[in-house]
Amino acid sequence: MREALFPDSEFKRRLSVIQAEMDRRGHSALILTTPADIFYVSGFLTRFWESPTRPWFVVVPASGMPIAVIPSIGEHLMKRTWLSDIRTWNAPDPRDDGVGLLSDTICSLAPTSGQVGLPMGPETQLRMPLADFNRVVRNISPRELVDGTDVIRHAREVKSDLEVDKIRTICQIASNAFDVVPDLICKSTTMDRLFRDFQVALLDAGADWVSYVAGGAGPDGYEDVISPAGNIPLVAGDIVMLDTGAVKDGYFCDFDRNFAIERTSKAARRAHSALFAATEHALESIRAGMRACDAYDVLYDKLRAEGAKPAPGRFGHGVGLSLTEWPSLDAHDQTELREHMILALEPAVEVVPGYHLVHEENVVLRDTGPELLSRRAPEELPIVPT
Amino acid sequence: MREALFPDSEFKRRLSVIQAEMDRRGHSALILTTPADIFYVSGFLTRFWESPTRPWFVVVPASGMPIAVIPSIGEHLMKRTWLSDIRTWNAPDPRDDGVGLLSDTICSLAPTSGQVGLPMGPETQLRMPLADFNRVVRNISPRELVDGTDVIRHAREVKSDLEVDKIRTICQIASNAFDVVPDLICKSTTMDRLFRDFQVALLDAGADWVSYVAGGAGPDGYEDVISPAGNIPLVAGDIVMLDTGAVKDGYFCDFDRNFAIERTSKAARRAHSALFAATEHALESIRAGMRACDAYDVLYDKLRAEGAKPAPGRFGHGVGLSLTEWPSLDAHDQTELREHMILALEPAVEVVPGYHLVHEENVVLRDTGPELLSRRAPEELPIVPT
Repeated sequence: MREALFPDSEFKRRLSVIQAEMDRRGHSALILTTPADIFYVSGFLTRFWESPTRPWFVVVPASGMPIAVIPSIGEHLMKRTWLSDIRTWNAPDPRDDGVGLLSDTICSLAPTSGQVGLPMGPETQLRMPLADFNRVVRNISPRELVDGTDVIRHAREVKSDLEVDKIRTICQIASNAFDVVPDLICKSTTMDRLFRDFQVALLDAGADWVSYVAGGAGPDGYEDVISPAGNIPLVAGDIVMLDTGAVKDGYFCDFDRNFAIERTSKAARRAHSALFAATEHALESIRAGMRACDAYDVLYDKLRAEGAKPAPGRFGHGVGLSLTEWPSLDAHDQTELREHMILALEPAVEVVPGYHLVHEENVVLRDTGPELLSRRAPEELPIVPT
Repeated sequence: MREALFPDSEFKRRLSVIQAEMDRRGHSALILTTPADIFYVSGFLTRFWESPTRPWFVVVPASGMPIAVIPSIGEHLMKRTWLSDIRTWNAPDPRDDGVGLLSDTICSLAPTSGQVGLPMGPETQLRMPLADFNRVVRNISPRELVDGTDVIRHAREVKSDLEVDKIRTICQIASNAFDVVPDLICKSTTMDRLFRDFQVALLDAGADWVSYVAGGAGPDGYEDVISPAGNIPLVAGDIVMLDTGAVKDGYFCDFDRNFAIERTSKAARRAHSALFAATEHALESIRAGMRACDAYDVLYDKLRAEGAKPAPGRFGHGVGLSLTEWPSLDAHDQTELREHMILALEPAVEVVPGYHLVHEENVVLRDTGPELLSRRAPEELPIVPT
């Protein structure tokens, strides 16, 4: 038996926030289909989501406990959560792969005049085959499906103290792993070797698994930040960046670190200094009540003031049950920042045309401003001898 | 620069198979949204899919090259693939997150009377927000969206020699990692420690990353096969199972191994013997031309003949660009097995009520029958001293 990750009281709190939002909007039920949403309301944690074969559902009624509608292969694990109403079918079944069971569950919870929420908006996906979804829509008609994104988002965006502790733990694990990266660079000669060694360091430091590692290397930064590692040599003058979303107890960190091999150029040092200063400024200035786009402006304006060229794209985002969550710290996102949001602050600059530096920290927003969860990156770009 | 994983000729071959199927069905375009489908047609490989923030699209026209419609953060990486028509937007953008660009692309390829394929069937998901998908549907009307599952499935199910080599490589890597598991069990005292050590062993053996590890432990088998590890002690008499989907160059293995700690019960030995015999029988008997349900019967009937109690659920599946793929080796799947399919053979038995043993190998189906890609599990359940 795996010990429960949270007491039932934590799930009761989450459910009450969700059901209050459902009540406010008049939703009779909420259908959840993704790993993060289902883990959030139930505590059901598995890497089995990696298999696209089977759909999984949790339906939240307007009042009362959530109902799991899942393949029987997950029944034993779901029974270990706080949920008690667990309905299963033997999946995969090409004749009816949960469609009837899900439809019946929804129909039993929502009156024919009712509205049924389903996350359909930004950062959401429908994790089931579309043809089966269309069957569910027909089965539950005339009940109306409406966008439930804001219901689950409103709950998930603000973390409880218990959740903050989980994210703090994985941030500390990743911070410890980043501390040994200079040693790894010394013994690695290529990026793919470094990526492997870094993942090992994360596991050794206590990560349950490593869902995301990306990085780059180049003379004055890197050309992109989402590539897997190639068999490319690390050479003096390179700046190496590693970025990770490691996981502990189902919660993610998401931050990066930069390292210079043997030497840095003046341009790289200035860029790094601007990134550090912009982050420092954000740590002092960002407050609950600001909008996400205001936080973006704080970072953007400081980079400009430091003489750096801000890179296009967002400068941060939510972090928690997935690598990235609402909101986006960009020019367009009007989301009001709230206390106990977990944010990645991620300013980026173009050092020379086509080459970028990205700097990232994870924070929890307190009434006094951001509190660091990642161990602060050094002010000076660290130089690693080879 | 990362070296290309495949020559352009491989992608041309894939495209011609897809376009021949599209032609046969009269589809004017095929929309792809998932990591596996997009990697398959383009070679675009990244772990950035872990972030749910941005949708990614590749549109395959009836003739000519696929078109990438992607967030600009991926432009540099996509430019390193064989695709040349790459259309980008600065995502996330709440005003229009690729909807207009995707719609315009489809409209330029499909006549208003045309049918546009989109995978909607088994093993597929739509990886974009449903509200944005509904906008695309309206934008491209009166063009009809039809199920494109069988188009992409027909191509992906049968692997080229180059793909078989990739999967053979990761199967060898995982086989080497499984070889050190007895040592890891000796030094591990709990399951979560063993899970970490096993992931390190996979990375050390050459895996790029480890997308899936599950397992279980118990006196006569395990209660479920999808759980993450708990902080539970390993004790004499336990049977420990580890199952992994590790990744090399974007291709998965998926197989497990069982280990007994210090001793085994007679029931466990008999169950393991039945599983070994059933797999051995399948390795001799399965042929292209049989249906997936026939392969299931081969395993099921042999387990029964050996006096074992077959567990519910399927006894295998396709493996390749994702942990599990079509077809399912179960009682219902009528898919004809074809040469160069990669299959996981995965019979399972109930040893005592509620406790199971699962045995898994990966094979490529040749004209002479299955060829092992995983190193064959030992006939006798290996006993590990502590």
